[in-house]
Amino acid sequence: QLLAEIIAAFHAKTLAGKHVLITAGPTFEPIDPVRGITNLSSGKMGYAIAQAAWEAGAIVTLVSGPTALEAPYGVRRIHVQTAQQMHDAVMAQLKQQKQEVFVAVAAVADWRVANASEQKLKKTGDNDMPQLQFAQNPDILATVTAMPNPPYCVGFAAESENLLQYGSAKRQKKNVPLLVGNIGHNTFGKDDNELVLFDVHGHTILPRADKQTLALQLVAEIALRTSLM
Amino acid sequence: QLLAEIIAAFHAKTLAGKHVLITAGPTFEPIDPVRGITNLSSGKMGYAIAQAAWEAGAIVTLVSGPTALEAPYGVRRIHVQTAQQMHDAVMAQLKQQKQEVFVAVAAVADWRVANASEQKLKKTGDNDMPQLQFAQNPDILATVTAMPNPPYCVGFAAESENLLQYGSAKRQKKNVPLLVGNIGHNTFGKDDNELVLFDVHGHTILPRADKQTLALQLVAEIALRTSLM
Repeated sequence: QLLAEIIAAFHAKTLAGKHVLITAGPTFEPIDPVRGITNLSSGKMGYAIAQAAWEAGAIVTLVSGPTALEAPYGVRRIHVQTAQQMHDAVMAQLKQQKQEVFVAVAAVADWRVANASEQKLKKTGDNDMPQLQFAQNPDILATVTAMPNPPYCVGFAAESENLLQYGSAKRQKKNVPLLVGNIGHNTFGKDDNELVLFDVHGHTILPRADKQTLALQLVAEIALRTSLM
Repeated sequence: QLLAEIIAAFHAKTLAGKHVLITAGPTFEPIDPVRGITNLSSGKMGYAIAQAAWEAGAIVTLVSGPTALEAPYGVRRIHVQTAQQMHDAVMAQLKQQKQEVFVAVAAVADWRVANASEQKLKKTGDNDMPQLQFAQNPDILATVTAMPNPPYCVGFAAESENLLQYGSAKRQKKNVPLLVGNIGHNTFGKDDNELVLFDVHGHTILPRADKQTLALQLVAEIALRTSLM
């Protein structure tokens, strides 16, 4: 903790006193009391951004799906499991406290299981398979960007295919001032990454580096853009 | 590591030189390259048993589904993701090296997604939901118990309902000399547990304790039973 404070003391306080809300990790959508649908997001990128934002002087709230990561020092973490819970926690935070920046890093499940079982599903016969029906989850980022007077919203694009070609259109479709895409293929769980930032002016590539370094650069880019607003 | 060696030096070497194969953790059954079905097993119980078996002098191989846990000191760990991979890894180990004891602790998925997608499923329209078909996974414990000259097999029963009543029948159905059941409800992810052991003579309750303590007791019970064989 002392070390974290010392390291932070050497960082420029580019987000001093600003409230930053971040989502991270996967969501877990129950099938029954023990089973569920999730994804391979480790939460590392979102947690790295939370730490970097705190080091830049921000007051950081991290709404996190299930991960094994420790909360970064100084960051307030709220645990959630499902996309709906993540949506509700984000909305509750925005209602409680004006947030200057919202960074949606979490890999939120598009669908939940509509017919989740309250009892554990039993393997009864050899040909008796579960029948799952799905329902669409709320789009958290879209809900936030549609608010009157929203925070500065940063979206993440998980797809890497043709990102440089379609990134700008994706940013407009998501209606965010800044969209961050992964150039590398499937960065879930990995310690490094390569990002491309799309804004109204074009794109900026953050070359391959560990996620902590990229997080510091991304936070600097966010701070620069929000300071001009 | 030195500490682990010192602690182990104080344990009775009740499994000295015996080969013990253990499965632990959940499995992850892919839906597409990033999504999948898993369960809330943390792997803690299986990892604790692996450590306790090593402390008792065994040569331990741990076949583990995805968890955030570190491999216990001295234990050889093999990472797998799906039930089929866990099955294959267990069979390969048994073929490679005679194992005296097999402890099936993993919460193996009963089903896999038969129509898993090689491309990430896209959210196309509001009413466009994925259609998942399931197929049954191999029953690893049943495969091992059906082998000629199998290792001493220990099964785990996840259900807690009416366990004391049906545990003995369950043990016979699973065709194992020792069946371990959780008395408490849903111990997944928790640090403590309460176990009941069923064998041909009846049942033995291991009262509520942390999983490491229970693991030591269970290993002592296994050692006692295998020493009599």
